[in-house]
Order: sequence, then structure tokens, then C-alpha cells
Amino acid sequence: MLLTKSQIDQHNDALLQQHQRGLEYVSGNVPDAAAIINKLAAFQVAIPSWALGNGGTRFGRFAGKGEPSTLEQKLEDVGLLHQLNRSSGAISLHIPWDIPKNVSALKQLATQLDLKFDAMNSNTFQDQPDQQHSYKYGSLQHVDKAVRQQAIDHNIEVIKYGQELGSQSLTVWLADGSCFPGQLNFRGAFNNTLESLGEIYNALPDDWKVFVEYKAFEPNFYSTTVGDWGQSYLYASKLGAKAYTLVDLGHHLPNANIEQIVALLLNEKKLGGFHFNDSKYGDDDLTVGSIKPYQLFLIFKELVEGMDARGMDHTKDLGWMIDASHNVKDSLEDLLQSVEAINIAYAQALLVDNTKLLAAQQNNDVAQAQEILQDAYRTDVRPLVAEARLKAGAALDPIGLFRQLKVRDQLVKERGANTVATGL
Amino acid sequence: MLLTKSQIDQHNDALLQQHQRGLEYVSGNVPDAAAIINKLAAFQVAIPSWALGNGGTRFGRFAGKGEPSTLEQKLEDVGLLHQLNRSSGAISLHIPWDIPKNVSALKQLATQLDLKFDAMNSNTFQDQPDQQHSYKYGSLQHVDKAVRQQAIDHNIEVIKYGQELGSQSLTVWLADGSCFPGQLNFRGAFNNTLESLGEIYNALPDDWKVFVEYKAFEPNFYSTTVGDWGQSYLYASKLGAKAYTLVDLGHHLPNANIEQIVALLLNEKKLGGFHFNDSKYGDDDLTVGSIKPYQLFLIFKELVEGMDARGMDHTKDLGWMIDASHNVKDSLEDLLQSVEAINIAYAQALLVDNTKLLAAQQNNDVAQAQEILQDAYRTDVRPLVAEARLKAGAALDPIGLFRQLKVRDQLVKERGANTVATGL
Amino acid sequence: MLLTKSQIDQHNDALLQQHQRGLEYVSGNVPDAAAIINKLAAFQVAIPSWALGNGGTRFGRFAGKGEPSTLEQKLEDVGLLHQLNRSSGAISLHIPWDIPKNVSALKQLATQLDLKFDAMNSNTFQDQPDQQHSYKYGSLQHVDKAVRQQAIDHNIEVIKYGQELGSQSLTVWLADGSCFPGQLNFRGAFNNTLESLGEIYNALPDDWKVFVEYKAFEPNFYSTTVGDWGQSYLYASKLGAKAYTLVDLGHHLPNANIEQIVALLLNEKKLGGFHFNDSKYGDDDLTVGSIKPYQLFLIFKELVEGMDARGMDHTKDLGWMIDASHNVKDSLEDLLQSVEAINIAYAQALLVDNTKLLAAQQNNDVAQAQEILQDAYRTDVRPLVAEARLKAGAALDPIGLFRQLKVRDQLVKERGANTVATGL
Amino acid sequence: MLLTKSQIDQHNDALLQQHQRGLEYVSGNVPDAAAIINKLAAFQVAIPSWALGNGGTRFGRFAGKGEPSTLEQKLEDVGLLHQLNRSSGAISLHIPWDIPKNVSALKQLATQLDLKFDAMNSNTFQDQPDQQHSYKYGSLQHVDKAVRQQAIDHNIEVIKYGQELGSQSLTVWLADGSCFPGQLNFRGAFNNTLESLGEIYNALPDDWKVFVEYKAFEPNFYSTTVGDWGQSYLYASKLGAKAYTLVDLGHHLPNANIEQIVALLLNEKKLGGFHFNDSKYGDDDLTVGSIKPYQLFLIFKELVEGMDARGMDHTKDLGWMIDASHNVKDSLEDLLQSVEAINIAYAQALLVDNTKLLAAQQNNDVAQAQEILQDAYRTDVRPLVAEARLKAGAALDPIGLFRQLKVRDQLVKERGANTVATGL
Repeated sequence: MLLTKSQIDQHNDALLQQHQRGLEYVSGNVPDAAAIINKLAAFQVAIPSWALGNGGTRFGRFAGKGEPSTLEQKLEDVGLLHQLNRSSGAISLHIPWDIPKNVSALKQLATQLDLKFDAMNSNTFQDQPDQQHSYKYGSLQHVDKAVRQQAIDHNIEVIKYGQELGSQSLTVWLADGSCFPGQLNFRGAFNNTLESLGEIYNALPDDWKVFVEYKAFEPNFYSTTVGDWGQSYLYASKLGAKAYTLVDLGHHLPNANIEQIVALLLNEKKLGGFHFNDSKYGDDDLTVGSIKPYQLFLIFKELVEGMDARGMDHTKDLGWMIDASHNVKDSLEDLLQSVEAINIAYAQALLVDNTKLLAAQQNNDVAQAQEILQDAYRTDVRPLVAEARLKAGAALDPIGLFRQLKVRDQLVKERGANTVATGL
Repeated sequence: MLLTKSQIDQHNDALLQQHQRGLEYVSGNVPDAAAIINKLAAFQVAIPSWALGNGGTRFGRFAGKGEPSTLEQKLEDVGLLHQLNRSSGAISLHIPWDIPKNVSALKQLATQLDLKFDAMNSNTFQDQPDQQHSYKYGSLQHVDKAVRQQAIDHNIEVIKYGQELGSQSLTVWLADGSCFPGQLNFRGAFNNTLESLGEIYNALPDDWKVFVEYKAFEPNFYSTTVGDWGQSYLYASKLGAKAYTLVDLGHHLPNANIEQIVALLLNEKKLGGFHFNDSKYGDDDLTVGSIKPYQLFLIFKELVEGMDARGMDHTKDLGWMIDASHNVKDSLEDLLQSVEAINIAYAQALLVDNTKLLAAQQNNDVAQAQEILQDAYRTDVRPLVAEARLKAGAALDPIGLFRQLKVRDQLVKERGANTVATGL
Repeated sequence: MLLTKSQIDQHNDALLQQHQRGLEYVSGNVPDAAAIINKLAAFQVAIPSWALGNGGTRFGRFAGKGEPSTLEQKLEDVGLLHQLNRSSGAISLHIPWDIPKNVSALKQLATQLDLKFDAMNSNTFQDQPDQQHSYKYGSLQHVDKAVRQQAIDHNIEVIKYGQELGSQSLTVWLADGSCFPGQLNFRGAFNNTLESLGEIYNALPDDWKVFVEYKAFEPNFYSTTVGDWGQSYLYASKLGAKAYTLVDLGHHLPNANIEQIVALLLNEKKLGGFHFNDSKYGDDDLTVGSIKPYQLFLIFKELVEGMDARGMDHTKDLGWMIDASHNVKDSLEDLLQSVEAINIAYAQALLVDNTKLLAAQQNNDVAQAQEILQDAYRTDVRPLVAEARLKAGAALDPIGLFRQLKVRDQLVKERGANTVATGL
Repeated sequence: MLLTKSQIDQHNDALLQQHQRGLEYVSGNVPDAAAIINKLAAFQVAIPSWALGNGGTRFGRFAGKGEPSTLEQKLEDVGLLHQLNRSSGAISLHIPWDIPKNVSALKQLATQLDLKFDAMNSNTFQDQPDQQHSYKYGSLQHVDKAVRQQAIDHNIEVIKYGQELGSQSLTVWLADGSCFPGQLNFRGAFNNTLESLGEIYNALPDDWKVFVEYKAFEPNFYSTTVGDWGQSYLYASKLGAKAYTLVDLGHHLPNANIEQIVALLLNEKKLGGFHFNDSKYGDDDLTVGSIKPYQLFLIFKELVEGMDARGMDHTKDLGWMIDASHNVKDSLEDLLQSVEAINIAYAQALLVDNTKLLAAQQNNDVAQAQEILQDAYRTDVRPLVAEARLKAGAALDPIGLFRQLKVRDQLVKERGANTVATGL
């Protein structure tokens, strides 16, 4: 289902007066509201195809209703999100869950929905029914070259699907690692993985990037072969200029300073992009901004300042993607909340007075530096984010409209209550 | 399949000389080897029915082969373990996975295999196909009394199955909790859970215990309604004398001092039993003793000293159970390794000279206290553990015999390669 | 030094127009701004006497300037803070650092500065020059009754000082614990501590409370004898109705859900009060709200809802205190930032629509529950907090005025650059 | 004080029979006991000069007795340790605490005690009385070039002292970092630090190494400018071939897999050496092997296998040093326990059958790999370690002899009870 312009307009009209009041207030408080609104309007976050259904844990899964069961329906879900917020104009596909049957029809559908194909994701952490070799003991790290070759070939196949669709990046997340001391020779696993990544890298088109994602633990519980940013950096720097590190906010040890990692990777020109989510304990894959919103702001503060310092384009020089799992919420509402949290953090980061901050830093005026950050963070930027949506033709209150129009009920009617999306 | 006495004897004969050498050496070093060997021989660890197949994570599961697909086959697997080590003389069942069809036949089989039915486990963390209400938002904590009642009734049903089989305890592990701030009213959830547990408690036979298990996180990722030992203690103390806390080694926040928790619960007469496993990050459910064997020893040191101080019987006054998941190993080999690690830690703890330790503590002689513990821990007690097995008719080298006889191949022949055990 | 009314008025006049604009805006958005402002105005946070100088770590201390070197100067510093924000109307003393020489003069000074004497703090974690027994191996837990008695007597002495000054509570924080496995008999340490606390409890005046503070680790690095809320609860419940648990935000294991602990302690009528600070790794004692402001809000959300549910008075039924250390900032500026962060979190918590939240919880509408919390949290409440200050005669921008008047320079002139406050 | 040969011989004679029994037993169980004993005898662990007195925390320090108050006495303490175990044949000095007044006399004393001068340690985390610029806001990272220059000059001065004494390495541990978000520009801090380290590197003699130590947190509590192995690797790889990473076991986030870090740094030829200690929570600086002895074994397993694979010399191609703090034990006893734990872990690692392990890894035989490691770890290697001591002329039971001879009482007699060693 898609929304009509009049549905959105009607919704916005009812909220417009209240919105204008907020916009006027905050615009009077910040130096250049118009510039911030423009940046917000241009900023797009990709939605992963596997986050459109309900997720689960090893203890079970409680299904949602009206989940998309085809690739086309997944695009339609993202199209719907994009209509609601005009900030979700890209979808990130996962192979083999999303192998397109009719590429040109799919591209046409994407164009119609104004969606781009973001990073392609390979899967070597599960065995597929028809697969020759098992990934039980790893994929690109495997002691058996035949298994590694199968995983390499799979990644190259993913690139090909991506080329057909117009994607320009490959995200490699490896579950590779070990569950027990002694299971792996760490050097051997590292060197095998590097060699395998090298073959994938060689198959990468010139205008593509490959993102090497790291993760501290899970599903392996003793070691991970791309376990932290340092390891990902080692791979990326040995591979070459098209290889980058991808940061998933949930993939760290407790208490890690992620914003510093981001700043240093930017400094080394090896930051590739993000998987946004939030977490309290491990890779909890919760809604972005639902647990540690200040950390999210601090990350965006580093991104804005660091990208500007290098003359990077906020909208395209890094990959922005959500990677969350929705166990107890409607997946579309959850994604709307995630995108909103990202936009809020981005807007707050744009508010930081970096000239003043640099001066405070030069004077070791720590209290003042904190005041500057907190001033930006404590500002209620929601009217700026809403205005960016309004100008782009989206809804002032996306979740409000989603509920008002009973979108989920419509989807259940269209698709049935018991459809299940592929994913985790 | 079962082993014959001659298979075991033949295996032992080949290792006997080497074993005798070790036994003589260590017996010459410790005050009363015979007493320790007797205690080891009497010590039994229950095997959970759901750990007899391969486990998995939310990212997938790599199946083993020849897994037991019926309750009878599960008993046979445990019977086989018990033949190999004579330390696994009990099975812990899980409802609804293990609903007995023919109780008397099952009890006969258990008798034949010399197995007891340990704690019964209920399941309110998953929805069953025919279930009226969903546990998506909790079970005993649920805001809707009808859902709570369903979960209460299920637990009472589990008790009934247990009574028929001769079990005397119920383990209640709740996934109840929340994934996001605001989802729950913490007081409401606590009070609902307490009320629900109260109804289950009222249905408990006089000679039964109920174990309230706590867990810090997973599958809920913001809060857990029985989240730590303090919360479990609150429930157990409000419920009454038959309610106890159950400690699962993997259910704590990072760096928790589990041995101190154990000592304090013993002091409060509220320690009920254990789910043994090991972990590095979260509830990794790895083989017991594979990551932090010294912690395991320290826990047993508290248990031995604390139980002796209260005149408790090591073999029956607490519930001893493994709760591990086997993702990359043969499940039976993994369980043999777990039981061995438990026996080693128990033996080391029995070696601790508590009189000398108490004297060191009274003198604040910290270095000496450490020496005493390390002296016990550094002793190679494997010959004592093996001797306990030998005297009980089990194998000197259980995994060695398991491999020698190609037991798994036999099971695959009997059951087929693609059988799948119920479990996680 | 003290401020004059005209200094404050002049400062406020310059900011008034801007302030009024913000106040009008936010007042138009929230249901009852006046009620919130009144609650903010009534809310007072005690300042610990040991946080008025610069703190340090075991690696060293970088001194500030113009630190208060007498108890009278400490009161003056707090008086100054209170003039600036009218939210710091109490001081929490620490014995033996703050033994009053002239009680009546001190009380007169406090009255003059409009300050109350909040909880008294004992010190059994350090040896004093003239002390008979050492606390190297603990105080209330010590194996030697003579050491325990010395610590008990000290606490009773602290109560007496407090009685003279008009305080009504004693905070007992124990460093007691152990650095190595085997050092302590956990049961013995617990029981000794309980007995010692009992003697202190018996000396407690009828209208006093005793707060038993818990801490996971540091300065002992293996175990702590009041290590978590569960242990503190055990002591408090065994001691009696005047004993409560005190929560210091930095005293938990990584990832602990502190807001749930707070809610459960309130439910059990055993929550006594708070030591506010912030932290990323351990007991970092950073400025309140500087690292995890959303957690602070969630804690206040539980406090407001939970206290209201029991008809408690926000201003006096719990103890509110800062316990932070200032290593790199001016201590007074740091404290102003801490109080501001607390007031902001309190104001946001007052904005939560608990009726709507309860309805969402009853419907398991998790997305809506999150919206309700985030709506309150994302509101810029600073004008409400500032208005509460304005109405109470304090500064609209306390740090701004502190800097404008060059207060620290004045203090250095009065006291000298090299004065050093007692503390950590 | 020094021991006489006859004191040691007499002690050994009394224990010899028991020792021989153990040695014969274990020698019969391992392939080449003699080779292991030789390696143990050759292995030397440096003692840091600052660990010879009692340490403390920010909450206070409980002094020991008879602590060395001069550099000469520190050497004598290490000489004594070396007499007792013949495994502590080196001392690591710290400037400015250990500035030698008479270099040639000091070298003569070292020769007499058979001690080498291990890595030199600089100190830019504290301000010295006569220092021009403060390190309150960092040293090599500082925004002010003058401060950086002072810190650079200090490090170069430390190298010069080291050259005079015959040391060949400099350990740079930086407290540099920040306590609050916004305090630092991460890029600026990194680049300043790199530039500063570059100047120090340029002053490094050809046959020297510089070790860049990393630490996750403390004394800064928001960010650290050499915060993890990845950052240290970045510095070391940019500096050049003489720069290496130094691993302190206590400097990681919770749950870090240190053995994997060690293996990867070895693989990258950037592992420089170790600061051994143990910890449960943070940088607790506890006795080596007192909390996580299995982790210590796993680290040595990586070291032995990894160094052998690269043909490195165990005794000199990496720097081995203890860095512990002794708050509740006699510092010399504590160090004896640390060295013993290191030797035990090293001996266990030498027992690992790497050929068999590699075969298990090639077969993904995880259970077997675990058996191989546990077989080595569970072996009681203490007789091998003791034999290495015996052959080298040291004591079979170093702590036993230390106590038997009442060494500490002697030192108190010589030095007085209230002497205080420099250190933390």
C-alpha cells in the first residue's frame, strides 16, 4: 500500500499551527535553521530488508502481522516509510534472502518508490539448503580452502547482484571466530580471512567500496576473527583504498568509547559507514536512540566535525544504515522511531558551535566544552526535523499518521496475518 | 545403544597402569584421598534433556548428527553418559518438550539406566502451537491476568508430570522483562510475578522445592523481572521455606563475584541449586570450566565449606545441573567435558585445608590464604576423579572410550543423521 | 565571598527577555508549567563537603586554586552555590574531615547562608594519625572485635556531631571487602558487618535514618562486603525500619539497570537516598548527567512515579546528594553543572504523562510507551528550571554569573592559590 | 640483606625428598622435562622499582614496613627476590623516582646482585615539584606545544639515564586522555601524540625499543589517547621498526580476549612486551594469576606457539615485566607469588602439544583441541618450576624460606618500620 498526497497533506494541516510555533521558536534560537533543515532533508538512512519483519532470539520469535513475504513487498514497506519521513530513501539487500527474480522490474519499482539500492550484504553465517560446504566452523577463515572458496564465490555473486541493481558497496559481516580456546589458530584464521577478503576485493568494481564489519562476540563466544575496530582496520588497510571499516553500534565490549573510534577511523580515512541501533548489554539490536541517545549525539558530533574537516559530503561519503531487530514492536513503527532518533542526533550535532568548542579545547576549558555540547543536545530540535520532512512532502508526525491510517491493518488485509519476512 | 561391562573393562585395563601411577602419587600428597574419592563417587550432576542435541543462536543452528528425537532416546543418551562416568545419574526434563506418553514405561527405562528425574522445567518463554495467549509480553508478569493464569496453570501441570515421575523440584526460569524503557511498570511486573509465583507455590507438594532462577538479560534486553540474585531472593523469601534461588553461572553482569553470591545465599538458607556452564561475554552456555576454571573452583570452595558449616549433604541438599548449549561440539562429548570439569573443581575444593585457611583469615595473612587456595587448585586431581569412576564401574577416560567405540556413528546408524533434538 | 542581590538582579535583567521567550514557549507546550516550576524550586540537592576541592586518582592529583581549607569556608562555598541556583541548600559533612570546633557558630553560619546539614558521613576506609587500630583489613567486617568496636564507636561519634548540628541521617559507606580469593570468609564478614551495623543502629536517634551504601568494587578489588543492592537490602531489612539502602550511581557492575533497582527498593520501602554522579567505566565520579543523561532521566521517572504512588514528599522523604570528584574542572562550576543536570532530569520526569503511560503499558503498546518517555525527555525544559531559579532569587545562568564575577579569582585572593580542601 | 648459600641449601635439603618425588612423577608424564626445566631456568621477569612498597588507591594507602627508601635498597630487594627464585634478574626503573646519583656504583651493585636494567619508565602523569608546565590536561597530547616539549624532553632524559645503566628500552605509558565529552578533539590529541612520540623515537638509540602502552581508562574516565591495542598499533606502525605495543593485562575493557590480541600483534611483528598482573574489574593490579590463571595460561600458549613460529628467543625478544600493586600483602611475598604464577603458566604452555593441536584444528575437532589445552593446564607443573630454581641455586619454596628467615623483620630492623617506597 502507498499513501496519497492528500492523506499526508490532511495530516499535516491539522498539525501545522503547532509545528509552526515550535519552528519559529527554535529558529529564533539557532544561528542558521534553514541550513540545518536543508541538511536534514538531504540526509537518507538505508533500511535493511531483514528488519521489516519481527526478529527473535535463540529462545524464540513472536511473529508480527502483515510482514512482507516477497522482495517487492519489502521495497513497498521501505517505500511507505520513505513516504512518511522522506528520510528512508534506500534499501539494503541481503543475499540469499533477497535474490531478485526480475531485476528490471525491481529497479522500476525502486524508481517508482524513489528508493536506491544501498550496500549489499552477504551471508556466510548460515547454511543454505543446497550448499555444498557448511559454515559451522567459519567461512572466510575456514581451514579448508574449499569452504573459503565457496564463501568467496558467494560474496562475488552478491557483488554481481548489486551491480545489476545499481548498488555500490558490499558489507561483509563475518560470524567467523571460535567458541573455545584452542579451536582456532588465531594467526591462521586471520591470514586465511585476509586472503579470502583479498579475492573478494579483487572482484570489486572500481566504483565500489567494501565494508569490513567487526563484532566483539556472538554467535561465536570465545573469539571473533574480525573482533574489533583494530582488526577491521588491519584488514582494510592491507586490502586497499576501496576497503573500509563499518561500525555497528552494538558490536563492542562494555563501555567502549565508540565516538573516539569513529573519530580515529575518520582520521585514518578508513571509516566506511554505520549500522545504527542501540543496546544495553550486547548486540541487543534495539531501536536507535532508545537506550543511549547522548552517545548517539556524540557520535554524530564526531561525524559532522570530522567529515567537515575533510570536506566530505554528509549525504554520500559514508554509508548510513539501520540494523535493528524488532521483537516487541511493529517493525515499521520501530524503524520510524530509529530514523527520527538519527535525525535528531544529526540535527543536534549540526548545532554544535565548533569554533567555540575548539577555543574551549585550546584553553582546556573543560566545563565550557561540556556546556557547548550540552547546549546543543538539550535543544529541542524536533521542529527542525519535522520541517525538513514537511518541505520534502512527508508527514509531520510519521508514527501518528501510520496509526491514524491503520496502515498495519491494511497490510494484514493485503498480505494476511501470518506472513513471515526472511531475516533473523 | 548401551555399553557392555566388558567394553568398559577392556578400556580400563589398558589405562590402568598409568592411572595407578597417578593415583599413588596424588594419594601420597593429600591427607585423605579415599574420603575424597568416595565423595566424588557419590556426586551426581543432572543432565538437561535439551542439551542432548546441538544448540544454536539467533543467527542459525548447525545441526549435529544422531540426535535423540524421542524422550526415550534422551534418557538413553543420559544413560550412556552415566555408564561412561557414573556421575550423570539424573535427567532434568522440560515441558512441553518432554511430555511423557507412557509414564510407567519411562520410569522403568530410567530405573534400568539407573537415572533419577531431577528438577522439572517449565517453559513460558515461547508460544506453543495450540496456546491461547501469547507470552510475547511476558508470562507470570503479564498485565493481563488471563495470560498469567495460563502460565500458572502450565507450571502446575509441570509439577504434576514431575510428581508422576518422581521428581521433587520445579525450576522456574522466566524470560519476563522488557526491551525498552517505559514498556513495564517495574513495580507492577514484580508484584504480578510474585502473585503468580505464589499460586504455583501453593500447588507445590510438601516435599518439593521451587527454584526461582534469575538472569540479567536476554531474551529481554532492557530489564528482566527476575534479574539478579537480590530479586530472586526477594521472591524466594516472600514465597516461603520451599522456595529457593537457582544460580546459573552465565546469568550475571560482567565481573560479578558469583562465589560471594553463593556464600551469602547459603548463609541465608536460600540457595537452591545450580545451572553449570561457562561464558566469556553473556549467557554463552559454553562447556563448564572451559573459560574460567578458577572461578568454578572458588564457587565449589564456597559450596563445600558453606554446606559443611551447615551440615548439609553434598549429594542431595542442593540441585546440581548442567545447562549448556553445544554449537560446535558433539553434545555428548561436550557433556562429558562439563561433568569432568565439575568433578575436578569439586575435588580441588575438597582439598582445601579449611582449618589452615580460617587461621590465615583470622591473622589477615592474605598471602597465605592465597597459597592455600592455589595449592589445592594447582594439584592435579584427575587421578582422584578417575579412581571414583573406576570404583563405580565407569570408564577411566570417558571421552576416549566414547571415541574408541565410535558411539556417535552407532547413534547415527540407529537414529539417522538428520534427527533433531528439541531444545534451543 | 557572597553575592549581592544587585549582582544577581543585574545578571538576570540582561537575560530576562531571552528567558521569557523560552518560558512562554515551553509553558505553552506542557500541561501545568507552574506546578513543575514550584516543584523545581522546592527541590534541594545536598553538596558534600569533600567535593569542594579538586579530587584525584591513585596516579596523582592536580590541585585547583582557592579551595576552602576550613569547615567555615566549605559552608561558604555551598552558600555561594546556593545563592547562584537556590537548589543547593544543604551540606553533607564527613567526619573526621569536618569536625566542628564551634558548633553554635557553625549553625549560625549555616542559618545565615540558608543551609541545612544533610546526612553525616563516617570514614572507616582510611587510618587517621592517632588511630589505635588499622582498617587495612576492614572495619565493621574485621575479624578482630576491637577493630570493629573502634569503627562502631566512630560511627556513633559521627551521629553525635550530627545531632548537635541538626542532621538526621547517617550514611555508612564501607570500603570493607577483600582483594584476593580466600582473604575473607564471606559469611563471617557479612555477619560481623551485620552485628556492627546493629550496634550503630541501636545508637541511632528515633528520628534518624541510617543509609547503607553499596559498591561493587574499589578500593577492594575482589569482593565488597556491601557489594550490591541485594546485600544492602539484606542489612537494611535485618536492621529495622530506620535502615535504608543508599544508591550511588557509580557503584554498579557494567550495564546494571539502576532505574529498576530504584523502583524495586521503593516498592520494598527500603530506598533511602542517592549519591548522584556519572560514569563510563567504574566509580568515575564525573559530573552528574555528563555521560548518560537518559539514564538519569529514567531514574527520576521511577522516582517521581514511585514516590507519588506512595504519597511521598519529593523534597524530604529521600536523601538527595551529589557525590562527584572534580579532577579537571573548577569544583564549583562542576557542582553547578551537576545540580543543573539533576534539575533538568527531574523536570523531564515531571513531564511524563503517567496516565497515558500506564494505558500504553496495559495495552503492551511498547512503541507508544517509548514515545511518551522520549517526548518528555526531548523537551527543552531549561526555561522551567531557570524560572524556578529566578523566582527563588537565584541566577538565570549560574555558571555565567560565576564567570562574569570572576568568583574563583576572588576566592584565590581571599584564600590563596595553594589551599587544599580535605577530601579524596 | 642478602641470603647465604647455606641458608638456601639448608632450606632445600629439608624439602628435597618431597620435591624429588614430584619431579619424578611429572617427568614421567611429559615428553621432555629437561628441556622445559632449562627454558624455565632461563626465563627472567623484571621487577618494577615501584612495586617494592605497598600501593594504595585514591581512598588511601595502608603502608607496609621496611620498605626500600633508596634506589640502592630497591635493587637489594630485587636482588633478594632473585636469590630466592633466580627468575627475577632484572629491575625496571621509573624516572624521576629512580634517578641514579652514582651510576657506576649502581651498576656495580646490579652486577653484584646479578641484575639487569630492564625497560626504563617515564612519568608524565604527575606533576613534579619543580616542573614548569602541568600535565593536568595531558602531556604528549597537550594542546600547548610547550607542554608537549617538556614531556618529550623528559622522555629523552629517561633514555639517557637508561643508556648509562645499560637498559635498552623505554616504556611510554600515557595517562593522556579526557574526562568529559568535548574536552578533547580526538584527532588533534592523536596527531599531537604521534608527533611527540616521533620526536622521542628520533632520540632512541639504534639498539633500543620503545614500547607504547595502551590503557582503556583511568586516570582519565572518558577517553584515553592510547586507549586500546588498535591505537597503540597505529602509533607503533607509524613510528617505525623500533616501536612496539606493550600489553598490560589490566588495561582492557571487560571481557576482552587478550590472548587473541597477543597473537595478532605477534603476527604483525608489533608485540613488544608485557606488564603482568591480574584483575577482576579494572586495572586492579592484583597478583599475577590470582584471579584468572587460565587466561594467563592461554596468553602464554599464544606466546610460546607464536614466538616459536617466528623463531624468536623466549628470553629476550619480548619484554617481560610485572606491574602490580600490593595493598594488603607484603610486597616481596606478593612478587614471589606473581613470578611463580608466571612460571607455572609458562611451563603449562610449554607442555601444549602443538602438533596435535594443529591437527585437531585442521579437523575442526573442537573437543579434542580443548582436551589438549586442558591436559597441559591441569598438569601440576610445580615440580618442574621448582627444579628450575633448584638447579639455578634458588629456593625450592621461596615464600617458605622468606618467612622462615623472617626476612621482613630483618628489613624493618635495617630500614625502620615507617620507610615508604616511592610509587603509587
